[in-house]
Parts: sequence; structure tokens; C-alpha cells
Amino acid sequence: VDVEALIAGVLAGERRAVARAISAVEDGAPELPAISAGLYARTGTAATIGLTGAPGVGKSTLAGELVRAAREAGRTVAVLAVDPTSPYTGGALLGDRVRMQEHATDEGVFIRSMATRGHLGGMSLAAPEAVRILDAAGYDLVIVETVGVGQAEVDVAAATDTALVVLAPGLGDAVQMAKAGILEVADVFVVNKADRDGANEVVRELHQMLRMGPPRTWAPPVLATAALERRGIAELWEAVDEHRGHLTASGDLEGKRRARQLREVESLAAERFRLRAAATLEDDAGLLADLAARRIDPYAAADQLARGSPA
Amino acid sequence: VDVEALIAGVLAGERRAVARAISAVEDGAPELPAISAGLYARTGTAATIGLTGAPGVGKSTLAGELVRAAREAGRTVAVLAVDPTSPYTGGALLGDRVRMQEHATDEGVFIRSMATRGHLGGMSLAAPEAVRILDAAGYDLVIVETVGVGQAEVDVAAATDTALVVLAPGLGDAVQMAKAGILEVADVFVVNKADRDGANEVVRELHQMLRMGPPRTWAPPVLATAALERRGIAELWEAVDEHRGHLTASGDLEGKRRARQLREVESLAAERFRLRAAATLEDDAGLLADLAARRIDPYAAADQLARGSPA
Repeated sequence: VDVEALIAGVLAGERRAVARAISAVEDGAPELPAISAGLYARTGTAATIGLTGAPGVGKSTLAGELVRAAREAGRTVAVLAVDPTSPYTGGALLGDRVRMQEHATDEGVFIRSMATRGHLGGMSLAAPEAVRILDAAGYDLVIVETVGVGQAEVDVAAATDTALVVLAPGLGDAVQMAKAGILEVADVFVVNKADRDGANEVVRELHQMLRMGPPRTWAPPVLATAALERRGIAELWEAVDEHRGHLTASGDLEGKRRARQLREVESLAAERFRLRAAATLEDDAGLLADLAARRIDPYAAADQLARGSPA
Repeated sequence: VDVEALIAGVLAGERRAVARAISAVEDGAPELPAISAGLYARTGTAATIGLTGAPGVGKSTLAGELVRAAREAGRTVAVLAVDPTSPYTGGALLGDRVRMQEHATDEGVFIRSMATRGHLGGMSLAAPEAVRILDAAGYDLVIVETVGVGQAEVDVAAATDTALVVLAPGLGDAVQMAKAGILEVADVFVVNKADRDGANEVVRELHQMLRMGPPRTWAPPVLATAALERRGIAELWEAVDEHRGHLTASGDLEGKRRARQLREVESLAAERFRLRAAATLEDDAGLLADLAARRIDPYAAADQLARGSPA
């Protein structure tokens, strides 16, 4: 890989370069640190939106409608659909995203599914790296869509400026969402498929849970949409804009991004150390034998590894 | 906390000691390494079963029925229901587990919900530690029930000897499960609520996906149950037994446990290092300023932290 050319291509917004750089993130390619170093100074301008919710709530349709709204507002937009790896699918699931195909010929739109087959830090480190590539490529808005409501998805959502949490009637209620720990990262709630029975109950439940939660400087609004019928999209777009305005006016945007940056550096450092610890452990026949015979417990073994870490 | 007394209490199978030790895991208590060291030599005898699946498929009901089956087979059993932390719920959600209350007065049964509010390694490190406590306390069988189908849940399921993946008709199909990366960790598939419409389709879809997947030495069976009506439980119990027999006969059990042990030690060591990296970063005003100004990228900063790690 010619890293210099790849970096230049991304900065020029060339689609093939952007696609190849994201593949490098997926694969955890050895060139990744060099690519990251070459792009980093040119990042930080894109607005980022997270779209999280259980399978079947209509996230892809909503993403498609947000793309339309962004384009109508004259902004370029990238959609990153983040899927955990499965050997059954090979990772990417673009086939799902049929609804997005109407944007396929629009030069101002970039759509990409992403797995994390080789990235050592998993999705929560790979996704922000891919978002930075799209940011450096000049997209005004980056939408990150996740597949489910697990911890990794919560981490990914928390790594965007504005996290939309999507629910739908009949697909696990708000209490189930609370269990997944996702409610507290939401900046905007979307109850999609609002034309179905039970939508009002979901809205009511959400309001109730928000009243029970701790007070926040930003009170997350609850919006009803029917994305397939394009209902409620303008209001949603407005709510996202309002949240962005709040972030900028309050100074929270800087703080949020700074905290994210520090967490990312810590995680990357810890991953590097994990590799070293694994290598050290593999070579330490004595420690391995002690572990197997339960003469030493995992905490003590970890301490031993951490103490012996190379400077 | 009197750690010696706590360890002695756990080893004697005293319920209050077991409960307090698990709370120490939840909180990431400073006594944890000492507790772990005191118990470790007495672990490794319990059989462990994971119960994973989307909210609403009936995992708790199934867990209750497995408890009954285990008791009828003369075995003691502990159920650990693992929930991610949410400030809205405070973590534990025992209220859900109404169906288990019939076992509440049985001395041979221990039921506990668990959050991970303070444990630094999150659920994937906290859950195995809690399982070891139940193992050391002498329970023959430990059932670990998770809340959803995200990466953390997959990690927890993969850390049991026999991972049951539970589906139900109408609650996200097998393709959705594949997206969550959970199919490949399944040792036994359970299609619960099999009395409902669409159950046969889910069974068929699973068989199809299994045929598409890579060949394995153990072909995961697909079982249909209706846990509320106690249908299919005997067959499920038998399948779990068969899988256990396969693990023992093939030697896979040792290999599986050994690989788990190494991953855990590596993760614990990496977590320790992360704490140190965070502290170092906080004190390094120059590095912080460089990061904020985007003069240095996260990879380079992580390298700098990893190089400067204390011995």
C-alpha cells in the first residue's frame, strides 16, 4: 500500500481511497498508524450522529431519510453501518441497505458497511477511526448506524456528537432498553413506526424513564417518526440541529470530544500492552504451568505480567 | 471486610458470604485480588451453561426450568443473571425473575442478578470471576443468563462450557442473530415459545445457517421448547448433557478452559495497564496539549504512553 497516495486520496475526497482506508481499519492493517497520523490534523470538522436501537426498529430507513434531509440542507453526508463480525456473513451486510440505494448515484453521499474482523480494539476503537477518515475526506455529516443494543453499540453511540436511540412499538419496550444501558447515552429519542399500535405507550414510557433519571443540562426530546412514510423526519432533523446548537453554545462539544480522545488513547495503549502481555505469557512456561495447576490466580498472574512489562 | 472470613464462608457454601463476594466483584472492590487468590485453587469443578438471546425470548423462564431439571437430577445449581449497568435501574433487575421464586426456599439453589458498576474490565471480566465464586462455593452447575445479544453478551456466553443461544418466533430472526456475531459461539440452539406461529421457520432458518457455516467437530442441535408449558425441557437437558459428554471425551473442555484462562489474564493485565496509562496521560500536560491541537494522533500518543510504561 502506498500510504502517502492513500492519505492524499482521502484528503481529496476520492471515494476509492476512502473505501480502501476504511478497509485498512477493518483489517487492522499495519499501515493504520501511518494513515491515522497523516489524516489527524485534518479531522474535527464533521458533525457525527449515532443511530442505535434493536434490530427491526427501522434504523436503515431512518438513516436514508436523514441522508435526504442533509442533502436538502446542502450538506454532504457519509453513512457508516457498523456490524460485529460473524464468519457466517463475512462481516459486511450492505444487502440490508436497499433503501439507501436511491442515494447511490449522489456524489455527495458515501455509504459503507463495516465489520471489525482484524481490528484489535474491536468496534469501539475501529468505528471512531473510520469516522475520522470520513471526516478528513470532507463529509459535513457522518451518520454511524449500529446493529443492536449491546455494550459495544452503546460505546459506539457514545462516541458520536449526537446519539439517536431508536425504538419501535412491539420490539422490546423502554425497560428492556434501559437494561442494555443505552438510555443514558441518548441525546434524542426516536419512536419509529409511530403509525403502529403501541407507539404512544413507548413514548409515554420513555418520558416516564426520563423523569426517573438524573437531571441533565440537555433534556433529550422524544420524537415520533414513520420513516417509511417520511413522517416526522423534518422534526427529527430539527431536533438534531437543536442538540448540535446546545453542544456548541454550552461548550459541551469540546468537552465531549476531548474526553473521547483521552479514552481512545488509553484504550489503544491498553491494546498494545495486551499484545505484549499475550506474547510474554506465551513464552513463560512457568507461569503457564502455575495457571494450569491453579497455583496462581488470574489477578496475581496479571500483576506479574504488568510488573514485568518492558519499558 | 474480613477477607479470610469471607473466603472461608464462600468455601463453606454460606449464602451470605457468596452474596457478599459477588457484590465485591460488582463493585470492583480492592479486596478482589485477595478473594480471587483465596478461592482459585478450589475452582474448576462446576459445569457452566450460558443463556443468551434477545430480550423477550424467555431466557428467565428457561433458566427456571433448567434449575428444576438440575434439581431433579440431584444437582445443586446457581443462576447468575448478568445485566449491564444503567443508572436508571441501579443494575440489578431481580424483579424480572418472578418465575424463579418457586426455587427461593430451596437450599440447593442460589439466584443472583449482577451488574458491573465498578468492575474495570466490564462484564466480560466480572462474570467469570463471579462464576468462580459460585464454583468455589460448591454449586454443581452455574447458569449464566445475559440480557441481550451484543458483544459483551457474546463474550460472556463464550466464557461458559456450554453456550445456549435462545430465539423465539417474531423477535428478530436468525439473520439478525448472525449480525450480532452470536451464532458461532452457540453449542445448543433453543427455539423457545415453539407453540407460536413462525417457530418452524426459525428452526428451519437456523438449520440453513448452520449448513452455510464452517464444519465443526460438534454440530449444535436445534431444540424447540415452550418453557412456560414445560415442553421440550427434558430434551434440552439431554442435549446439554450430550454436549458436556462431547467436551469431556474430546478433550475440548480442557482446551476451552485453558484458552479462556489465558484471555482473562491478558485482559486483566491490559486493564491494569490502562489505569496506569490514564494516570500518566493526565499528568502529561505536553501530550494533552499536543492531542488537543491535533499535533499528535491517537496511535502515536498511545505508542508514547506504551513506551513510557513503568516497569
